[in-house]
Amino acid sequence: MQESYDNALLGRPDAEPPALAPRLGIVGGGQLARMTAMAALRLGCDVVILERNRLSPAATLATHALVGDWNDPAVLAQLAARTDVITLENEFVDAEALRSLEAAGRVVLPGSVTVSRAQDKYQQKALLEAAGLPVVPYARVDSLHQLRTAVQRLGLPLVLKARRDAYDGRGNATVRTVDEAESAFHALGAGGARALYAEAWCEFSLELATIVVRARTGETVTYPVVETEQRNHVCNVVRAPARVTPEIAARVSEVARRAADAAGMVGAMGVECFLTASGEVVINELAPRVHNSGHYTIEACACSQFENHVRAVLGLPLGSTRMVAPAAVMVNLLGTRQTTARPMGLERALAVEGANVHLYGKLMSGAGRKLGHVTALGDTVEQAESAASQCAAAISFGEAA
Amino acid sequence: MQESYDNALLGRPDAEPPALAPRLGIVGGGQLARMTAMAALRLGCDVVILERNRLSPAATLATHALVGDWNDPAVLAQLAARTDVITLENEFVDAEALRSLEAAGRVVLPGSVTVSRAQDKYQQKALLEAAGLPVVPYARVDSLHQLRTAVQRLGLPLVLKARRDAYDGRGNATVRTVDEAESAFHALGAGGARALYAEAWCEFSLELATIVVRARTGETVTYPVVETEQRNHVCNVVRAPARVTPEIAARVSEVARRAADAAGMVGAMGVECFLTASGEVVINELAPRVHNSGHYTIEACACSQFENHVRAVLGLPLGSTRMVAPAAVMVNLLGTRQTTARPMGLERALAVEGANVHLYGKLMSGAGRKLGHVTALGDTVEQAESAASQCAAAISFGEAA
Repeated sequence: MQESYDNALLGRPDAEPPALAPRLGIVGGGQLARMTAMAALRLGCDVVILERNRLSPAATLATHALVGDWNDPAVLAQLAARTDVITLENEFVDAEALRSLEAAGRVVLPGSVTVSRAQDKYQQKALLEAAGLPVVPYARVDSLHQLRTAVQRLGLPLVLKARRDAYDGRGNATVRTVDEAESAFHALGAGGARALYAEAWCEFSLELATIVVRARTGETVTYPVVETEQRNHVCNVVRAPARVTPEIAARVSEVARRAADAAGMVGAMGVECFLTASGEVVINELAPRVHNSGHYTIEACACSQFENHVRAVLGLPLGSTRMVAPAAVMVNLLGTRQTTARPMGLERALAVEGANVHLYGKLMSGAGRKLGHVTALGDTVEQAESAASQCAAAISFGEAA
Repeated sequence: MQESYDNALLGRPDAEPPALAPRLGIVGGGQLARMTAMAALRLGCDVVILERNRLSPAATLATHALVGDWNDPAVLAQLAARTDVITLENEFVDAEALRSLEAAGRVVLPGSVTVSRAQDKYQQKALLEAAGLPVVPYARVDSLHQLRTAVQRLGLPLVLKARRDAYDGRGNATVRTVDEAESAFHALGAGGARALYAEAWCEFSLELATIVVRARTGETVTYPVVETEQRNHVCNVVRAPARVTPEIAARVSEVARRAADAAGMVGAMGVECFLTASGEVVINELAPRVHNSGHYTIEACACSQFENHVRAVLGLPLGSTRMVAPAAVMVNLLGTRQTTARPMGLERALAVEGANVHLYGKLMSGAGRKLGHVTALGDTVEQAESAASQCAAAISFGEAA
């Protein structure tokens, strides 16, 4: 414990510590970066976070926290100068800026090509379709003319989506008539800065997801297939493993692996699928990053999605995705209103046996904002869900009345 | 992810973030503080670390890191001003300085009385004996006269130990003759600043340990009883659960609970025991803190010793100590020589399925220095030990030749 010889031996008490282990840079400082940083620190890495503001959930865990615009090549270059490998917690980073880092010989994983393909959801669909993977029918809608063509071809209802920067339902609209479609087309900002595309309405019986991790070598591992349940377009509950036939689970894993290959992914990728009424698996969306549907892996799997992501981007062997319990359920802790994110009710929440509480240390709450999550293990999904739900229900955010 | 409204709502981008969750201060910044900080951060706490030097393993994870002498009441007062609860990662902090904080109304857990009883191992023995708990026969040795009396009463070989500030075998000597006893008495610095005591030699068949966590309410939970194996007085391997009869395991848990009660402990306490050749359980030593013999609980138990320590000192309900696998083995990663602590061999280590690597991010290695650990779960202790040992053997520290 009294290990004061560090500084004496290093000789320069005010100097930056030497980098003995890999230095991982993460673009973005939210909860995904925070949990990735925890995994990286456990493996002895230095972690540098780049976020637009100083008080981000991941900044606390960073060896260094840089504040700046991640789309600014000069800021990214500062991050690169301090790190050996750069990774991303979101797919919204400007791919051109990432390309400039790669051109300068920096390691960015996932790479700019993967990010550019994934961040434009229209291109993402095209990529998956070209790889022979099942996607919901879709169409380009750059103009009202194309919108009307899309309605004719894809039918109604129809989902209009922003090609970029949309998440958790933001930038999306489901329309039931041509008039609604035209209103939404304008409301979503089409024709201006925002490009849209249209997707056919997909009647699904279940939403399934998995995390696939692809190593630099191209080797892939997949985590158990899970059921995801959205509330107001925000992930609310994840149930592992999904209560589907082995054939359906295998099909989800297969399309996830093939999608990761097609995208040239390195690292963890979330793959969201629909199980249609006729039993087909269709890819809904790829996220080229650690994903909310994989948070349960922290407690439930031998090696979490976060550690496997770190291993993948650092070129280390991938860890086992085996579950350590028969079942696990994760419930998100979502804000309900604009207030501080002061957690309330932790005493009751922690009294629920076997529930693991994760709070992200955010300062402000907001409707649907992800402020934490709860994971419980169990012998069955039902048992785990009971504990996780009871624990999550005890927690609220904001000031006491 | 784009959650830039934090600063706007808070209005003061350069201000200290408001404390929304409990602020935990930790005296000491080594690996125990590091792993405690990870557990506290997961629960949304702010963590403030106080360590003598800036580059400590826990500093990276701290919301704030204070550099200063933890025995200086003014420095402790700075820590107290930034935190709601102060806890300790070692028992070497001056109990008087802690008492001054308590007198000022600060919450220090474990409290100064507990720390003062535990940090003086002679007093610790006396406390345990007074509580009717089994200890190795011992004697005070303030003078050569008392030393000779101790030899007569306790027999030879005899273990001379510093009453304070000794750990991992430092400050201890095993002597086989009266001459050796007198030499060691002087060599250990007796008569000067260092007070000694003597313990009878204990022939043991096994070293057992457990972690007991005592809440502010006095409620206690105990973790599975483990076997510990020392190498050169440093903990090397921990096997969970111990391969002993249920009666012996129950006896260890019972003495641990009673010891925690007797010490007025709040938080996690390591209790090391000898299992004698005749099958008796005798307490070797208490450590009023999270303990190396409990590192395996991170992966192997529903709630780790670190999280339960945080819960206890914050007054939150204690979590389940149930193992999530039939067996777990932890192997320490110890330095062998004075060099940098650059980890080598991670590629081979992480290729061992199911082994979890924890590196502490220390800068310098040294003989016997704890630089990390590996935990593996398994269906049997033997299976877990095979994986943990293989993984640990692949890791070394220092520069490539």
